[in-house]
Amino acid sequence: MKKILLFSILALVVPKIQAQKKLTSTDIDQKVKALVSQMTLEEKVGQMTQISIEFLLKTENGRVVEPHQIDMDKLATCIKKYKVGSLLNVGGNAQTRENWHALIEAVQKMALQERLKIPVLYGIDAIRGNNYTLETVLFPQEIAQAASFNPEVSRKASQISAYETRASFIPWTFSPVLDLGRQPMWPRIWETFGEDPYLGTQMGLATINGFQGNELVEDKYHVAACLKHYMGYSMPLSGHDRTPAWIPEREMREYFLPQFAAAVKAGAKTVMVNSSEINGVPVHASHHILTDILKGELGFKGFAVSDWQDIQYLYLRHHVAKDDKDAIAIAINAGIDMSMVPTDYTFTEDLLQDVKEGKVSMARINDAVSRILKVKYEVDLFNNPIGNANDYPDVNSAAHNKVNYDAAAECITLLKNTNNFLPISRGKKLLVSGPTANTMRSLNGGWSRNWQGNNSDETEKDKNTILEAIQNVFGKDKVDYSEGVTFDKAINIDETVDKATRADVIVLCLGENSYTETPGNIGDLTISAPQIALATALAKTGKPIVLVLAEGRPRIISAIEPGTTAVLHTYLLGNEGGNVVADALIGKINPSGRLPYTYPRSTNSLINYYRKYTENKEASEVAGYDPQWEFGFGLSYTTFKYSNLKLSSNKLPEKGNIMVTVDVTNTGKVAGKESVLMYVSDLVASITPEFKRLRAFEKIELQPGQTKTVTFTINKEKLSFINYDLKRVTEPGEFKLAIADLSTNFQY
Amino acid sequence: MKKILLFSILALVVPKIQAQKKLTSTDIDQKVKALVSQMTLEEKVGQMTQISIEFLLKTENGRVVEPHQIDMDKLATCIKKYKVGSLLNVGGNAQTRENWHALIEAVQKMALQERLKIPVLYGIDAIRGNNYTLETVLFPQEIAQAASFNPEVSRKASQISAYETRASFIPWTFSPVLDLGRQPMWPRIWETFGEDPYLGTQMGLATINGFQGNELVEDKYHVAACLKHYMGYSMPLSGHDRTPAWIPEREMREYFLPQFAAAVKAGAKTVMVNSSEINGVPVHASHHILTDILKGELGFKGFAVSDWQDIQYLYLRHHVAKDDKDAIAIAINAGIDMSMVPTDYTFTEDLLQDVKEGKVSMARINDAVSRILKVKYEVDLFNNPIGNANDYPDVNSAAHNKVNYDAAAECITLLKNTNNFLPISRGKKLLVSGPTANTMRSLNGGWSRNWQGNNSDETEKDKNTILEAIQNVFGKDKVDYSEGVTFDKAINIDETVDKATRADVIVLCLGENSYTETPGNIGDLTISAPQIALATALAKTGKPIVLVLAEGRPRIISAIEPGTTAVLHTYLLGNEGGNVVADALIGKINPSGRLPYTYPRSTNSLINYYRKYTENKEASEVAGYDPQWEFGFGLSYTTFKYSNLKLSSNKLPEKGNIMVTVDVTNTGKVAGKESVLMYVSDLVASITPEFKRLRAFEKIELQPGQTKTVTFTINKEKLSFINYDLKRVTEPGEFKLAIADLSTNFQY
Repeated sequence: MKKILLFSILALVVPKIQAQKKLTSTDIDQKVKALVSQMTLEEKVGQMTQISIEFLLKTENGRVVEPHQIDMDKLATCIKKYKVGSLLNVGGNAQTRENWHALIEAVQKMALQERLKIPVLYGIDAIRGNNYTLETVLFPQEIAQAASFNPEVSRKASQISAYETRASFIPWTFSPVLDLGRQPMWPRIWETFGEDPYLGTQMGLATINGFQGNELVEDKYHVAACLKHYMGYSMPLSGHDRTPAWIPEREMREYFLPQFAAAVKAGAKTVMVNSSEINGVPVHASHHILTDILKGELGFKGFAVSDWQDIQYLYLRHHVAKDDKDAIAIAINAGIDMSMVPTDYTFTEDLLQDVKEGKVSMARINDAVSRILKVKYEVDLFNNPIGNANDYPDVNSAAHNKVNYDAAAECITLLKNTNNFLPISRGKKLLVSGPTANTMRSLNGGWSRNWQGNNSDETEKDKNTILEAIQNVFGKDKVDYSEGVTFDKAINIDETVDKATRADVIVLCLGENSYTETPGNIGDLTISAPQIALATALAKTGKPIVLVLAEGRPRIISAIEPGTTAVLHTYLLGNEGGNVVADALIGKINPSGRLPYTYPRSTNSLINYYRKYTENKEASEVAGYDPQWEFGFGLSYTTFKYSNLKLSSNKLPEKGNIMVTVDVTNTGKVAGKESVLMYVSDLVASITPEFKRLRAFEKIELQPGQTKTVTFTINKEKLSFINYDLKRVTEPGEFKLAIADLSTNFQY
Repeated sequence: MKKILLFSILALVVPKIQAQKKLTSTDIDQKVKALVSQMTLEEKVGQMTQISIEFLLKTENGRVVEPHQIDMDKLATCIKKYKVGSLLNVGGNAQTRENWHALIEAVQKMALQERLKIPVLYGIDAIRGNNYTLETVLFPQEIAQAASFNPEVSRKASQISAYETRASFIPWTFSPVLDLGRQPMWPRIWETFGEDPYLGTQMGLATINGFQGNELVEDKYHVAACLKHYMGYSMPLSGHDRTPAWIPEREMREYFLPQFAAAVKAGAKTVMVNSSEINGVPVHASHHILTDILKGELGFKGFAVSDWQDIQYLYLRHHVAKDDKDAIAIAINAGIDMSMVPTDYTFTEDLLQDVKEGKVSMARINDAVSRILKVKYEVDLFNNPIGNANDYPDVNSAAHNKVNYDAAAECITLLKNTNNFLPISRGKKLLVSGPTANTMRSLNGGWSRNWQGNNSDETEKDKNTILEAIQNVFGKDKVDYSEGVTFDKAINIDETVDKATRADVIVLCLGENSYTETPGNIGDLTISAPQIALATALAKTGKPIVLVLAEGRPRIISAIEPGTTAVLHTYLLGNEGGNVVADALIGKINPSGRLPYTYPRSTNSLINYYRKYTENKEASEVAGYDPQWEFGFGLSYTTFKYSNLKLSSNKLPEKGNIMVTVDVTNTGKVAGKESVLMYVSDLVASITPEFKRLRAFEKIELQPGQTKTVTFTINKEKLSFINYDLKRVTEPGEFKLAIADLSTNFQY
């Protein structure tokens, strides 16, 4: 034992110079099998347990000491007594990289002193950046990335996020969210890639590729991804987080499953499970969704981790189990492999009992443990349980921040620009106003250095708010500022109006404060009343208003939009958001984002763009689909002309493609990027067809006068849908294809 | 032929004196079989066709002549050429009884001249009263009836409705609506019995019994009921009428099916089909819902009629059929028996073609025709194709109107009564204000003498508006009036406020104008802005405000409720609504209604009372279930004390009951009625249990000081739910029973 111990400690301190031989999938399976065969039940159950690090930290007066310090006694209980296999960080504040290194080293050191030397898998909510480590890049949130309609934006952002996460010696991120963002009330819609399954799939695949690299995640610059929240989490009936959804199986397979199916196929290592119930069954208790579909149909070989405390919630909240033991048996038998317990050892103790009582089989335990160990091998944790601090010189580098700026520049979306009012020429006097003008919170949203993102004004002090960036770009002497209102109450509307009368342009920054999950629930989608009051008062001045929206979800602005001259939507652009807004205002950036969701006009008329014909405006005297702005809408400072829409054939053969080409010309005076969107409508089908569906897109850049030909492919798959028998089918008939204002019909 | 013709005409003109021998169900089946065997395909298809009467009326300059006159040429085309078997009236204005008699006589006379002398089945939207005939009783709409929590209210109302409908020689009413009213945006929620399946079932059964009598509907005072809109029509995702619903099969069977199942079991003769789609399948195309469930599982022996134009809409709106012939084949094969075409003969022509081409089988045609003829026999149409005008002396009698007044008196609901402000003593000076104060439209709603109920101020001139009734009760000299605002705009708010300062009490009448179906769609559930402005201005006077709500759905009033002293909810109380409001204000009526739905506080937080535990207030930091008023809420001018809650056993046996008794005492100073509601909560179940479910109720009347013991029964059925395998089950475990503020647990 002593020799082995010595060797293992040595392995930790000697930096690895030689690259490890790449393990094949078969190698890993053999290693896993061998390891599992040596494990006791207690060791297996420990591997299935995930504990939150806050439970292991030193506390004073009941509060975690900052910066975090491991309590070695607590750690010993965790690792030595309960043989816990996974830890996560949630709830506290971001730490320095150095602190993370010390923490991970302490954990792994102790884990590797155990009999079988299985390193701990540390997982973290590294959401669009390694946000739980200070001084790392905070990219645009997923909803903003989706607005770029450019998967390269997500690929690059997640590549850098992976690098900066590994730089904290963490090999596993709880990202991306692949939930379909079609319920605008839901307080996590900004964590999604928007309302369209195809857009979500493309952005999701790019993200996973960025996180994981191309194959096994064995190198020191990639991390295992975690698809969440599998599945159907995003459309609660009430609009409120973690409340019941009604999703018929057909609609689940049509709209919610494709993103996950594609991501599993692409090799995503782990999934985190939906905390809510679908159709009366909590997903943590759904054998159908977790085992039949995920591990059966989709052939998922990784492991499924619960969300926060969700096995306990099966009895505490959902009332489908009578106690913890019952809840654990239900969840593990349904297909959960690892429990995010997170702050006690009941799971470990009660699962042991369940196995002893025959309520959970050893086969299920072995399957779960094998899946977990497989991922530990895949992220090369056995060879590389701790990283080398010197391997990551580019964390938060200028180069990484430049990628962030370029990403945000592709996301910002111009929704209105009356008489080409924007860009604003230098020299104009600007009044900047509104509650989102001078805060990093409304640029970054939740998951920014802590759960609710409520201290990013301190942690991101060196970054520019919208106000600061506008001052930098337009000159401090040309920029006046008056907050006007907070989100909740008026401050100085009269003074703001007074200042507005002396400005040439009002830059009115409205939206939301940071939030996520249940604290972000709201009862009314309308933007808050004080903000409406401020906008209304400013509109009365007659001065042009450029409305800048910084918000996680599309708050209703139909009462104030008519009083604005231009509207820029920033979603949650991240740390470069301020700079990007200022550069867009002055024309250094030409906006090219498109809405990744429908921006609704009325609070109680929340219809997605892939509406049915019966939801169209013309189908209903009142309140048909008539949003403020439709999905895919976005303007530019230049103009694009579409021409020569051609199909290689007007009949799609059983096997083969139709090639679609269209010419796009920049007919304006400045360079611009354009996402070209191809929609297809099935004119008659056995399931009521949607009015249209996005089936392809490509982003191009065009200089003034330049023309490019964009090519898309139509095949059977792109015309398919889930039929009444839950099969994916393509039915013969006529289809309409539309790109911008051009359209043509074809047959299959 | 001539002899037969002579006989048939004779039969029409000689009033039947002898009562017909009652036909048994077997007699009818034999008669139907014999008749069908003689019919040509054309005659069969004609029986399956329903045409709107407006298509057969004389027109001038493209508009129907009033009063209606049959165009005999058009009628001949309908009856002689197309052999149409059913007519309906929709779209026009109510006619006199005499005009109806003439119309029905003309139709039946021509029908009985045909080869097989099959009378036409005339159906009508006789919604809570024979509203398409002038001078008939207009009862409270279903939502108001439900608030009575007294099935006798519905039974009596529908008995009289049946009598007054037969008095127009019409044997078939398109009523009741059994849709579950759980989506408050839906513009037909007021046509339902509210959000609870059990309440809806009890009120629905009473209604069907009132319409149809106890067995066959053969007498001259009853009509065939039509259950609508089978099934799942009432919960569109968007909240807008005739738009898609997502209803998983389990939830469909748990919440939407029970009312229909009970009504079919009770012998309801016909159903009308949901115009919308569920889960991508228009219900008019759903073999599963129409044939497997309705005619299979439920054993429905009557016929299913389409809703207005809904077979054509399968291709015009839903895009599941390529043309009319295709649509007809889909619908008839799915299980539709009769097509409400309604204003052309395409159905008749194209169904013929479908049969000839083998797309619809003769077996299906024979089944459909047999079902239709069966109902024609059941309503005794062959013996009594036209009624006798002298048989109905009580139409719109004082007795009938007294029943209406008593019904409305049981529905009105007291939602707030700060410091027992109500009733108001005689002598006080009242200011009556608001857009619903002086109109019959807001008391009657849609389906009042025409579709949108937009001329009831003319047709119901002799009835009292709220203002008129208050003037009658409190004395004209004590009542001032100022409208203040319409629903859409301010009129004289300042003047109204000025008048308010001189009054003792403000009776502020707010709500909605009349509407139904798609014209009633709205984008925001909040009560209209001018009404909020008026209420806000009046509240500033400091005078006590009694808010009287007259509205089809619960419009959000959270902004103005705090400024009121008392709130009376009238829903749509019908023609006696004004009198009942005035009598409630002065204390002649002691309100005893209870909310049949949850009255929401926030536009985007629409949760029903039978929420899941995860939707409770405590489960979510923000926006859990926290309505303005909960389902079942309703105050009284007296007080009731509940005591001695006892169960005959704390363990329900496999076969048998638990008897539940509770004492209710009137502890106040006036007599009052009290609906006693029993809720049961399943504490743990395989499907997440609801927080509570209504399982029994009974309305009692108590004099001051009087105590009554109310007895309920619990059996297995009352504890059952639909499980994951779509079976109705009762699972062993612990249950909580609650009546008012008392509760106790028991086991099964």
